[in-house]
Amino acid sequence: MLHAVIMAGGSGTRFWPESRNARPKQLLRLAGDSTMLQATVARLGRLVPVERMLIATNQSLVPAIAAQLPELPKSALLGEPCKRDTAPCIGLAALLLLRSDPDATMAVMPSDHVISPDEVFQQALRQAAALVDGQPERIVTFGIRPTYPAESFGYIERGAPLEVAAGDAPAFQVKRFREKPQAEIAREYLLSGNFYWNAGIFVWKAATIARALAARQPEMFAQLETIVAAVGQPNYADVLAREFAAIKGISIDYAVMEQATDVVVIEAPFRWDDVGSWQSLARLRSSDADGNTIAGKFLGLNTQGSIVRGPKDHLIVTLGLKDVIVVHTPDATLVANKHDEEAIRQLTKLMEERGMKEYL
Amino acid sequence: MLHAVIMAGGSGTRFWPESRNARPKQLLRLAGDSTMLQATVARLGRLVPVERMLIATNQSLVPAIAAQLPELPKSALLGEPCKRDTAPCIGLAALLLLRSDPDATMAVMPSDHVISPDEVFQQALRQAAALVDGQPERIVTFGIRPTYPAESFGYIERGAPLEVAAGDAPAFQVKRFREKPQAEIAREYLLSGNFYWNAGIFVWKAATIARALAARQPEMFAQLETIVAAVGQPNYADVLAREFAAIKGISIDYAVMEQATDVVVIEAPFRWDDVGSWQSLARLRSSDADGNTIAGKFLGLNTQGSIVRGPKDHLIVTLGLKDVIVVHTPDATLVANKHDEEAIRQLTKLMEERGMKEYL
Repeated sequence: MLHAVIMAGGSGTRFWPESRNARPKQLLRLAGDSTMLQATVARLGRLVPVERMLIATNQSLVPAIAAQLPELPKSALLGEPCKRDTAPCIGLAALLLLRSDPDATMAVMPSDHVISPDEVFQQALRQAAALVDGQPERIVTFGIRPTYPAESFGYIERGAPLEVAAGDAPAFQVKRFREKPQAEIAREYLLSGNFYWNAGIFVWKAATIARALAARQPEMFAQLETIVAAVGQPNYADVLAREFAAIKGISIDYAVMEQATDVVVIEAPFRWDDVGSWQSLARLRSSDADGNTIAGKFLGLNTQGSIVRGPKDHLIVTLGLKDVIVVHTPDATLVANKHDEEAIRQLTKLMEERGMKEYL
Repeated sequence: MLHAVIMAGGSGTRFWPESRNARPKQLLRLAGDSTMLQATVARLGRLVPVERMLIATNQSLVPAIAAQLPELPKSALLGEPCKRDTAPCIGLAALLLLRSDPDATMAVMPSDHVISPDEVFQQALRQAAALVDGQPERIVTFGIRPTYPAESFGYIERGAPLEVAAGDAPAFQVKRFREKPQAEIAREYLLSGNFYWNAGIFVWKAATIARALAARQPEMFAQLETIVAAVGQPNYADVLAREFAAIKGISIDYAVMEQATDVVVIEAPFRWDDVGSWQSLARLRSSDADGNTIAGKFLGLNTQGSIVRGPKDHLIVTLGLKDVIVVHTPDATLVANKHDEEAIRQLTKLMEERGMKEYL
């Protein structure tokens, strides 16, 4: 059976002031009327019903996520007591799935990307699931055709093409994973035509990833097994807290991917956007005649190319501006030059240094 | 005795969103911890105690003004039922003063300018009062030495100098009042050295202005007399509403000043600022090292030459901006290019057209 593991632990300082520690990007309504996480769940449709979902996140976010997804069984929420990167989280999910479904196929995906149409995404997951069936070593990834020399994504270099069924997306052996490149390298990748952006979506048999972790991260694997053995026991919370904290954090890429031998990349047949910044909203939401992307109550005079967001009961008025970002929340308002958006990270760091915790 | 008539009927759309119909400029804390009106009253010090003050305003503003000036006797608040420009208001104030003090000297002044130091202002009023003593035709005005070719002020052209006492400010006969000039003319005025900005502060005997109105605006004068005759009567409110509404609105400049023969201008010995725009706050409040003028809770990253205002409990963060105005109020936020500030009037007009009355 196909199970989905949705990674919802990200913190997302880039969407300050809407995003906060207690309300990260995946819990925001950035791209539409649903939150990113709600859309991720809905996107799976009937392919993966909520009974076969696990949402991995920080313990502190569990109540907020449960509130956004009332249809989700409580057991579907995997609250991590601390941040230990992606490998422990994925390994724990795999071991949990194997308890009830030893042949479980597992699709791991972020909760804060925009993907459409849903049907095409589901079909791509079906294709991936078929590709790992009876392939005990295989890992399937999804590659996005790059449209510009992005320095903010990891890349996947493709090798030999696989034969695929009619109607399926092109698929290739993966030659190598590449880390976020510098500008010059990114341009080479773009020109070569053999590189994809790594969408961070993986499909494998739960047993495959469990074996890989057991082989390459034996200490972590033992710790995860201790945790899983305690599920349902009165001391589960204590065991989880103690063992998870003791794990050495490492990403699944370093822990498993880079040494894996049978990795396949499917050229994503769906539209994909990582919604990495306020600016990216201009791609996802319709703009008005002046190129402004608006959410909320707005009046603009001689304003172009701007992104303005606020609640329905607070009027934002702009006058004589170009390429600015205005985001209003009840306790804080950001006004930023669109071309300086990267500095939002500096900003949240500065607030931390100054002890302005109530805004983080 | 010297009485003060403070004109507090202005609406001040230029300070939107802080200024609203119900909270015009003179009721705002723009230049310091007091509102402009409170500062105007305080500035008179012991020279004019509250018992000798009249504050002329719209009836709708009376409660807000009374709340800002609890020390003021209720009878000091002259609430006009409708806007009829300055002449009816000044005439009514003069007739009211004459009832109890036939020799009253009357200083008329706006409530929304910044003037300092208080002592120098009081001394200048004393000088003006002395100049009208025993001069039944004389009107004293105050002229501000222009510092740039302003097109937004009326000008006073000075004539022959008057002899003044040691320590008094220079005073001149007024040759002519000049309306707001166009740029080229304003430059000529500036260069000639014989022109002052009209500060809108006048000193005269109440009897002088009453006589002038009786002679030049007999119909209005009769209407004002009808109103004053009803003071203290049960039907006063009705008489005021009916008679005042029937008056033909006209400014004191057109009604009296321009035909007056004995007008004197005192070169203002005090600092004066009309606080005509958000930008003017940069002149009145101290700026930080980046040239930002801040009121409220603010964090700026790479932000220069900007004016940021908000309440103490709402954080405003700016990033990569130059010369912007950000003003946050509970229900509306303005973000404007400093160099486009004049368009704020367009803005309030636009809101009116669109029926956005809750923001006006």
